[in-house]
Amino acid sequence: MRDRPARTTDKRAERIAEFIAPLRVEPGSRVRLAEDFDPAYRAGVKNKKAGEELLRAGVAQLAEYQRRLAADATSGVLLCLQALDAGGKDGTIRHVMSGVNPQGVRVAGFKVPSTEELSHDYLWRYACRLPRRGEIGIFNRSHYEEVLVVRVHPEHLTRQGLPDGATGKKVWQRRYRQINDWERYLTENGFHVVKVFLNLSKEEQRVRFLKRIDVPERNWKFSAADVRERGFWDSYQDAFDEVLSATSTPWAPWYVVPADRKWFARICAAAVLTHTLIGIDPRYPEVDDKSRAALAGARKRLEREAPR
Amino acid sequence: MRDRPARTTDKRAERIAEFIAPLRVEPGSRVRLAEDFDPAYRAGVKNKKAGEELLRAGVAQLAEYQRRLAADATSGVLLCLQALDAGGKDGTIRHVMSGVNPQGVRVAGFKVPSTEELSHDYLWRYACRLPRRGEIGIFNRSHYEEVLVVRVHPEHLTRQGLPDGATGKKVWQRRYRQINDWERYLTENGFHVVKVFLNLSKEEQRVRFLKRIDVPERNWKFSAADVRERGFWDSYQDAFDEVLSATSTPWAPWYVVPADRKWFARICAAAVLTHTLIGIDPRYPEVDDKSRAALAGARKRLEREAPR
Repeated sequence: MRDRPARTTDKRAERIAEFIAPLRVEPGSRVRLAEDFDPAYRAGVKNKKAGEELLRAGVAQLAEYQRRLAADATSGVLLCLQALDAGGKDGTIRHVMSGVNPQGVRVAGFKVPSTEELSHDYLWRYACRLPRRGEIGIFNRSHYEEVLVVRVHPEHLTRQGLPDGATGKKVWQRRYRQINDWERYLTENGFHVVKVFLNLSKEEQRVRFLKRIDVPERNWKFSAADVRERGFWDSYQDAFDEVLSATSTPWAPWYVVPADRKWFARICAAAVLTHTLIGIDPRYPEVDDKSRAALAGARKRLEREAPR
Repeated sequence: MRDRPARTTDKRAERIAEFIAPLRVEPGSRVRLAEDFDPAYRAGVKNKKAGEELLRAGVAQLAEYQRRLAADATSGVLLCLQALDAGGKDGTIRHVMSGVNPQGVRVAGFKVPSTEELSHDYLWRYACRLPRRGEIGIFNRSHYEEVLVVRVHPEHLTRQGLPDGATGKKVWQRRYRQINDWERYLTENGFHVVKVFLNLSKEEQRVRFLKRIDVPERNWKFSAADVRERGFWDSYQDAFDEVLSATSTPWAPWYVVPADRKWFARICAAAVLTHTLIGIDPRYPEVDDKSRAALAGARKRLEREAPR
């Protein structure tokens, strides 16, 4: 009577795990982006067309898993997306999550914090927008901003109005620990945290900025501040090296996704999400004998009604 | 030109520290409420009248500190109030915080969780209602409900829809650790957490319940469920013993306040809050030479305006 979809075969799950393994930051490892991760890597996928077929299949599988996650409603997923400007965050969300029921997806974007947000503890605005059980939450930029942009521009730290004890040299190490603790708490309570860094090359950022300037429909995406921010490229790389090294944990790993080819980045993001959902293995709730009898009774009553 | 109030003298601060010392749960100690804390203790304060004078002075001092905290706006305070039914939480808040500017006080009460709240991680509803910098936040019941009522009635845990890994025998120890981590994070970021347990005797609860039944204006405060809950008295005492032992930390200590005399409980709560604020030592922001010159300029312009 109930549709019980075939579980993803172990073979298929294995292939996905193998596909994303090279992207995973091993907990405890010391990352050097420039040496360890190639923004143009594409895992042997021939071209965009082959990639798009892979993505279609991936999104369909993701959609099925999302339905099970929502029906089960005991676990949740939080995907944190980080990237430098023009890294492809918006496009990745659009392409990976289109085709997934939006009722089960909660996207939260984080831009310059409001006065209200600044007056709270730095995790407050992120904590308030966490997903519910059964939902896939996506943070478009995330609490990692607090150890990335705030680190590269320490004047943001001043704007947070912190007391003396909460600033100083050790603030970043302390924030890594606080973030790891928080993510562990979430994981232990059924919210699976997975983090994707869209790893763009400096040259590809230049090309994308130029396109935003030259194509009128993309102008709105560009601001002069983006080019100023590009001037801090090396500082950001250093900050990412440290963040990836310090906060890729067994319970909330980082994946460094090659972002120079948009189509490939999207396949990777879908694969990381699907891999996480396979690990959760959500199921449609079982119907017990009593409920099954109630269903049968309901069917009889409906049949007895004269059709109009 | 500016009012710069005298700081609380060290003598006075010392007296407050001495007054609350017997109420403090030493971090790492093993608490047995029945043996260690007397609900009728009153620190030698003669009677209610003497107590009310003490409270008036305490509230005035608290009000002054709150003004400084708000002006400084770098630190916040979170007071968590826990008690069994009729323990005096509402009255304590009313008497201690009346006289303090409500603009700087944020009271959040937590009753039976909503469906929305249950669908999130268990700290979510508390995190969203944290105070801002410059505010005194008061939790009327707090995240400790999650290791008290939920522990005494484990069916509440089932209603939280947790996945298998998040339940089981070790759930309480894990929650203590998660709560300690969370409070440490808050403290490290300038939010000082202080926790008060209003320690009522079983006999005094009986007397107060009877009053709620006999006095018509108090009927609304009483429900039959309160008496049912009283049947779990011993389980609650055990749960409090464990919570007080496991979560009184150097950064967020518990105070066990004798609650059989309402007037004395209120003095204690005010003293605990004031002690916390003295520790923070908030100051009115200093005005630098440039700003002082601007003030002088503004004064001149105002003086030059012809009076109507």
